[in-house]
Amino acid sequence: MTPLPPAFHATLSELLGDDWRTDATALEAHAQDNSWRHALPQGVALPRNREQVQAIVRACHDHGVPLVGRGAGTGTTGAAVPTAGGMVLSFVHMNRILDIRAGDRCAVVEPGVLNGDLQQALMPHGLFWPPDPSSAEICSIGGNLACNAGGPRAVKYGTSRDNVLGLVAVTGTGALIRCGGPYTKDATGYDLTHLIVGSEGTLALIVEATLKLAPRPRAQAGLRVLYRDAGSAAAAVSRVMAQPVTPTMLEFMDARSLELLRRNGAQVPDAGAMLLIEADGDDDTLPYLLNALAQAAEGDGMLELDVATDGSARDRLWAARRALSPALKSIAPGKINEDVVVPVSRIPELVEGVQQLSREAALPIVTFGHAGNGNLHVNILYHPDDAGESARAHAALPKVFALTLALGGTLSGEHGIGLAKRDFMAQAFSASTLAAMQAIKQALDPAGILNPGKVMPPLVPTPHGHQGTDFP
Amino acid sequence: MTPLPPAFHATLSELLGDDWRTDATALEAHAQDNSWRHALPQGVALPRNREQVQAIVRACHDHGVPLVGRGAGTGTTGAAVPTAGGMVLSFVHMNRILDIRAGDRCAVVEPGVLNGDLQQALMPHGLFWPPDPSSAEICSIGGNLACNAGGPRAVKYGTSRDNVLGLVAVTGTGALIRCGGPYTKDATGYDLTHLIVGSEGTLALIVEATLKLAPRPRAQAGLRVLYRDAGSAAAAVSRVMAQPVTPTMLEFMDARSLELLRRNGAQVPDAGAMLLIEADGDDDTLPYLLNALAQAAEGDGMLELDVATDGSARDRLWAARRALSPALKSIAPGKINEDVVVPVSRIPELVEGVQQLSREAALPIVTFGHAGNGNLHVNILYHPDDAGESARAHAALPKVFALTLALGGTLSGEHGIGLAKRDFMAQAFSASTLAAMQAIKQALDPAGILNPGKVMPPLVPTPHGHQGTDFP
Repeated sequence: MTPLPPAFHATLSELLGDDWRTDATALEAHAQDNSWRHALPQGVALPRNREQVQAIVRACHDHGVPLVGRGAGTGTTGAAVPTAGGMVLSFVHMNRILDIRAGDRCAVVEPGVLNGDLQQALMPHGLFWPPDPSSAEICSIGGNLACNAGGPRAVKYGTSRDNVLGLVAVTGTGALIRCGGPYTKDATGYDLTHLIVGSEGTLALIVEATLKLAPRPRAQAGLRVLYRDAGSAAAAVSRVMAQPVTPTMLEFMDARSLELLRRNGAQVPDAGAMLLIEADGDDDTLPYLLNALAQAAEGDGMLELDVATDGSARDRLWAARRALSPALKSIAPGKINEDVVVPVSRIPELVEGVQQLSREAALPIVTFGHAGNGNLHVNILYHPDDAGESARAHAALPKVFALTLALGGTLSGEHGIGLAKRDFMAQAFSASTLAAMQAIKQALDPAGILNPGKVMPPLVPTPHGHQGTDFP
Repeated sequence: MTPLPPAFHATLSELLGDDWRTDATALEAHAQDNSWRHALPQGVALPRNREQVQAIVRACHDHGVPLVGRGAGTGTTGAAVPTAGGMVLSFVHMNRILDIRAGDRCAVVEPGVLNGDLQQALMPHGLFWPPDPSSAEICSIGGNLACNAGGPRAVKYGTSRDNVLGLVAVTGTGALIRCGGPYTKDATGYDLTHLIVGSEGTLALIVEATLKLAPRPRAQAGLRVLYRDAGSAAAAVSRVMAQPVTPTMLEFMDARSLELLRRNGAQVPDAGAMLLIEADGDDDTLPYLLNALAQAAEGDGMLELDVATDGSARDRLWAARRALSPALKSIAPGKINEDVVVPVSRIPELVEGVQQLSREAALPIVTFGHAGNGNLHVNILYHPDDAGESARAHAALPKVFALTLALGGTLSGEHGIGLAKRDFMAQAFSASTLAAMQAIKQALDPAGILNPGKVMPPLVPTPHGHQGTDFP
């Protein structure tokens, strides 16, 4: 790897002082995210304001140094891993909540604010920010926006992209741009806000976000519904989504998930599949909402329906759901966890197809997730030190994607692409569509310094990951 | 104006036969939209499928001919008026509803489908498409998407951009791109879908859209609330938006609007301002929702609150609202109607500022609109044949925009920019932000043939409106 140019190093030192780090401890601390990937950066910048971010990007631009933006490092796709070398820009010091505008239902934050810290700050205002990755306590808002994080509440409240009103960001030339603002309707110029959300630091670095808030519901309650088989449960998902009461959460677990819960001591009856359905509202309306959801959940193949309206029964219900991911390790230490999306009506075929792939690969595949959005987590489990199992697991992965795409779905619902799914992008999109995306990359990051090699399949690799484009 | 090149004309004739029109009748029929603007195109293409659209765009690209996409011509900003000459591409023949997927809560349509026709087709499925410009019966889905149309229901259901899941579109090179699809969660690559929505035909032409549908509510009811002054009503808007029950509609009318209604015979008591607040749900929950909204509407300065739960009282309520726009003509035949947006908390200052501008210009300015989104229609009324009034009206317009921007708002909430507000874009956005938008324009439409001169302020005008860019 080419060493960082001395002039670049000098510029960063002068700009950032002790917030420019090249010691081994700092490099190692910014070498990985929550994927299996690891690559050392050549330097770590910890800016404290947007002007420093601009100056850093300009230096990278001028010297052709790759720049990987980093939130809290909880991503699962390798998007924050500096595989092309260069530097990591961490937003850990830019963690101020700049404004909470209760009357406008929005908050203005720096990208390093932790999701959970924002939720705490919003509590006294009776508001919350809906995106809820299961890692709320440790993940940053900037990271949530960069990968368009979702979580179970997205079925009612939408994903990160649906809950941002405006951004201030720095493009690949160091230009500061501002789009959107503290309002919910906007037909003024091009929508750069939603374009930058989900672009995983490849188009621009977010330095400020205006987030759309929702009023915190006064009451919540849930249903646990068991079904004979996955097909019956999936049909119920379609019925639930076709009636007027949108659930707050609508989670699916296949037979293997339930088996796993029982094996770990949870009190879950034997069944082919389970739905956890939740509603929110207030004490007056909640019984009616639950009743509508229960009516939709009932149908051919339903075995048992339990209502949990009080706190502790509801907590037990969700504890069962949360116990799933850690419990996977009791089957096998290796896990390939993908978050594919299919149209809700195709969930039965996805579940059936995955079971078929499991039999073919002779490996357990456990499927559960956010069924109301058609967003299922497919977990391929294997022993990494067993060469045969490892090979079969990695051979099964492209088949999961091919099945998903054949059902009219897409690669990722909430984790993003990063490195993990980058090489499948050409199956998900036509060459023309990818070329249009590359042209936009080129427009906002002409030197190709922002997170090179992520999201987009590389076209013309050059030193420091600069990507050319053949569009149009 | 340069005549169309003979080779271009021959290509279009061969491709489209009788669907390529250059006769005076056809040209005149495609020379204007619902703005005051008029410019004859040099030819009109009426394609029947996406392959023809691609071929037309390629021909325009190769010959440098400007191409203006056209839905039903109901836009108010001149976006569909071919001011740079060249040709109009009308989607009138591409008007098929391709699929209604009730289980996936989405519909797949061609752009020429009328909004009202789609709503009719969705009725038996118990679904609807939320965007509701007041022109539903005569406006097209493609036009709604091109200008990010909103309407009163947007406060609960969002605008056109919030209600589209995927697009198939043709970029300025004739490339067919496909992004998004029949699913509600997507973290796969760049979000071209929301970028193209609202770009007014300047980035790509939509040839297919997958629309997000909502379940049709079983019951609706409304409140009519009168206030002492605009400030009290605006404070109530903030209170309504800060509690958990989101209204379906939340419309504001100032004192002049009420005066106008009374002058035209409507039964509206004397007051400083009025809110119409609507909720939807079902028979069980609606009383609770209305109660919550009524509690929020009550407060300092409230004079009177009427509940209209039955059909006819509710109809009278909304008839009053619909009567407003036509009633404006009884004051003066000339009207400059802008749809500015401010943060909800700044509505009092906007209304007060507009009243001040009205006094300064010695012209009536009537303000009403979608207060829940901070999206108000400011109507400057004047006699066009009175040179003094006309000059004062046109001098007041930039002051309305300056006031809006000073309050942290933006130029347009639902009409778009087109020609009408194009020259104010440089006040709404920094030079860097506009340059980023221009770079994206350049990326998707490198020859600058798609609706040249609209939305973006021109940088480097050349023959046939080709725009260069100085970004980065």
